[in-house]
Amino acid sequence: MDNRTGMVIERPAQDIFDAIVNPSKIGAFWFSSSSQPWQTGRIITLVYEEYDARGEILVLDMIEGQKICFGWGKDGQGNEVTITLVPVGRASTRVEVVERGFEEGHADVLRAMLDNKEGWVYMLSCLKAYLEFGVTALRGALVKG
Amino acid sequence: MDNRTGMVIERPAQDIFDAIVNPSKIGAFWFSSSSQPWQTGRIITLVYEEYDARGEILVLDMIEGQKICFGWGKDGQGNEVTITLVPVGRASTRVEVVERGFEEGHADVLRAMLDNKEGWVYMLSCLKAYLEFGVTALRGALVKG
Repeated sequence: MDNRTGMVIERPAQDIFDAIVNPSKIGAFWFSSSSQPWQTGRIITLVYEEYDARGEILVLDMIEGQKICFGWGKDGQGNEVTITLVPVGRASTRVEVVERGFEEGHADVLRAMLDNKEGWVYMLSCLKAYLEFGVTALRGALVKG
Repeated sequence: MDNRTGMVIERPAQDIFDAIVNPSKIGAFWFSSSSQPWQTGRIITLVYEEYDARGEILVLDMIEGQKICFGWGKDGQGNEVTITLVPVGRASTRVEVVERGFEEGHADVLRAMLDNKEGWVYMLSCLKAYLEFGVTALRGALVKG
């Protein structure tokens, strides 16, 4: 099963792409740090200090300014995430996030999908607040259940 | 089953309470309009222009600055929502939202809970952006699946 989350951000797709793959920007809206610039084939270490969390991703595919695909885990064998940037007019973009790999029938799938949905909606909200309004302190405030 | 969503907002509980129940403020972060000030026993019409949506709630219980409980639908017989405001120090509040009434085993419950979770995370993110940073245009940008 998939989790699909979408948001319109009033910025060009390239700005959104750069905010995600550039380690100097990610801390403004998502993880507190990213170990290096994202590129296809690279393993990136992501740290979320506020939640005392650290994880790795494997970047599976990237198209500059258009798409980012990664798998959770250093071997990329976890859920697969595809972020697609669809231009809407000249200065606006529809950001579509699809996370695949939730196992139907698994006892914890409902909880896992709800936590995952929570994370993506919050990330996109913080990304919009950062790119449109310069707000860099919206992140890190979700209370985990 | 319940959906539980929590966020810390760096504002006193009374400010958060007022933002929700005061029709002059709700349009900055949630629905585009609310028909009248919220009070226990009142039926409130909520409109979300961007999604061409309109609905009613029945306010079941309110404690000034502390708690708001309502049921969806003019008779309040839909899901029940409890918003609890827990002070964290003098100028910060943990906002806890619980929505109850999802029927376990119902075929559409997963989709309904994910949509509901999406709505609450977005509402709380927009509320935080409004009260902490004065951002009133974060709302209305979610793309419904």
